[in-house]
Amino acid sequence: MTRQIVLKSRPTGLPLLSNFETREIILPELMNGQVLLTPQIFSVDPYMRGRMNEGASYIAPFNVDEPIAGGGIAMIAESRAQGFEAGSFVQGFIPWQEEILMDPTGLSIVDETIAPLDYYLGILGMPGLTAYFGLLEIGKLKQGETIVVSGAAGAVGIVVGQLAKIQGCHVVGIAGSDIKVDYLLNELHFDEAINYKTTKDLDAAIRLACPSGVDVYFDNVGGEISDTVISQINKFARIIICGQISLYNSTSIPIGPRLQGTLLKKSALMQGFIVSNYAKRFPEGLNALAQLVVSGQLNYTSTSYSGFDKLPEAFIALFEGKNLGKLIVKL
Amino acid sequence: MTRQIVLKSRPTGLPLLSNFETREIILPELMNGQVLLTPQIFSVDPYMRGRMNEGASYIAPFNVDEPIAGGGIAMIAESRAQGFEAGSFVQGFIPWQEEILMDPTGLSIVDETIAPLDYYLGILGMPGLTAYFGLLEIGKLKQGETIVVSGAAGAVGIVVGQLAKIQGCHVVGIAGSDIKVDYLLNELHFDEAINYKTTKDLDAAIRLACPSGVDVYFDNVGGEISDTVISQINKFARIIICGQISLYNSTSIPIGPRLQGTLLKKSALMQGFIVSNYAKRFPEGLNALAQLVVSGQLNYTSTSYSGFDKLPEAFIALFEGKNLGKLIVKL
Repeated sequence: MTRQIVLKSRPTGLPLLSNFETREIILPELMNGQVLLTPQIFSVDPYMRGRMNEGASYIAPFNVDEPIAGGGIAMIAESRAQGFEAGSFVQGFIPWQEEILMDPTGLSIVDETIAPLDYYLGILGMPGLTAYFGLLEIGKLKQGETIVVSGAAGAVGIVVGQLAKIQGCHVVGIAGSDIKVDYLLNELHFDEAINYKTTKDLDAAIRLACPSGVDVYFDNVGGEISDTVISQINKFARIIICGQISLYNSTSIPIGPRLQGTLLKKSALMQGFIVSNYAKRFPEGLNALAQLVVSGQLNYTSTSYSGFDKLPEAFIALFEGKNLGKLIVKL
Repeated sequence: MTRQIVLKSRPTGLPLLSNFETREIILPELMNGQVLLTPQIFSVDPYMRGRMNEGASYIAPFNVDEPIAGGGIAMIAESRAQGFEAGSFVQGFIPWQEEILMDPTGLSIVDETIAPLDYYLGILGMPGLTAYFGLLEIGKLKQGETIVVSGAAGAVGIVVGQLAKIQGCHVVGIAGSDIKVDYLLNELHFDEAINYKTTKDLDAAIRLACPSGVDVYFDNVGGEISDTVISQINKFARIIICGQISLYNSTSIPIGPRLQGTLLKKSALMQGFIVSNYAKRFPEGLNALAQLVVSGQLNYTSTSYSGFDKLPEAFIALFEGKNLGKLIVKL
């Protein structure tokens, strides 16, 4: 007997605990080519909200009555698969279960001697690679440019800002609490950080923080924050659309100012991406990030919940901005 | 004595004839380094609407009580400037006057033996270069892809569609009259053309015309037509923001569906540009276009008004979609 968390019903708007259900299942026998996994850490990520809707996002939707799956780190408890030894750790897409039998193709071994296991769900995982390739391939940052990052204290934002500082840029973060602003300024050494929830005039605050205008905007949140930043872009600006967390729970088509006129006047670029577009280059990205982590040039933090049962609550907390850095659940 | 047309007042919404005024002026003596020009053809272009507003667009605003200026072809009537012989033709930014004294720096000589003079305001001028560099540098068209162009029967649109056909693409034009649709299909050999004014369900019409989805959208118009096209883009689509003529007369900030979610899901790019970004490469572009014109692979048409007095009327006609191809005024 083991437990799994399924999508009981599709959320309308902000997900509720009642959209999830914990069920008991009986695992079959371990088959040839399979491993038995005991997950250690699960990652909860904003993109998973899209999978809870009907209809395709950039990744297939979850099915109702089937387990949620997400990024995770698991120990191999038993193995009948070559190259996956019992006792080692793997990461990949893993169903929300306390024990799982699966074909490990698609999982990758992680080396806990390089960095703590949870780093592989953050700075040395999908969020780190997202920051790395988004900046490199779309942002095309040049030394001395000004970059604004929204969701700056989130899993991707903290890496974006630090990478941009390493490249000699003026880095401005937008986040939703004073604790986050303090962390960005004092731990990660952003040049400026703005608490959008308490700033009365966001436009003026961004203007003050970006006296030379905005060359690159790394957008994790969308909505009115983005409208304000985009109104201050420079000629040839690049806008990296990485996430739109402020809109993921919208129940109608989000409406806002049309941006094409601004893109036209400023000869600016806006580009969406998902990290898997760069899957072939993950080794390059991970190598670059690992060197910066090991040499102490990249800091990392995460907010963790404890216990399998906390997965739905942790996921919902993402949309309430409760996390500093990567949000994870430790089993 | 000669006549000039000045901006009498800044338009609110669609420009009116009363926003313009014809005045008589006395030309001073021809000075050393100057030429006396007699304009032959003026170009009226949508971007000029932006210059009639207060505040900077991508080009400085016109001043009230000063002459409008735009693209034009003029004969050099007299010259006291080296390299600019009397009797030859030049093109460049020229004030709306019947005779002009000016420093010819910034004007370029045009060769009427290669193509008719008015081509240098269209397919071998700014609109042709706009189509060429927009497609090449942002569109990055690949053979077999589907491209939709809005404002398809306009000065830029007709070049975009033909260049895309030459590259082996499936080309779909959107235009505002049956005459334009007929021209696109039968003269320019677009694969499909849609009259958005008479089509009851534009979404369905685009779906039918683009059975494989939209890989590239070359946007000259903006607004709801663009919303509909963009809702049908494929993964890795490129949206070229060249013009937004449907919105240039807006008196409030245009509102519409937020597009970032679509760009994100589709890993799509949207980029604005103005042709002068590629000024250093104009010779390359003009050479490529001239070869295609001379070899008969690129067709060209224009709609012309006759007489200096018709300039304001012709300019206003742009926003009423009255032109097939480039809109010009012959003096």
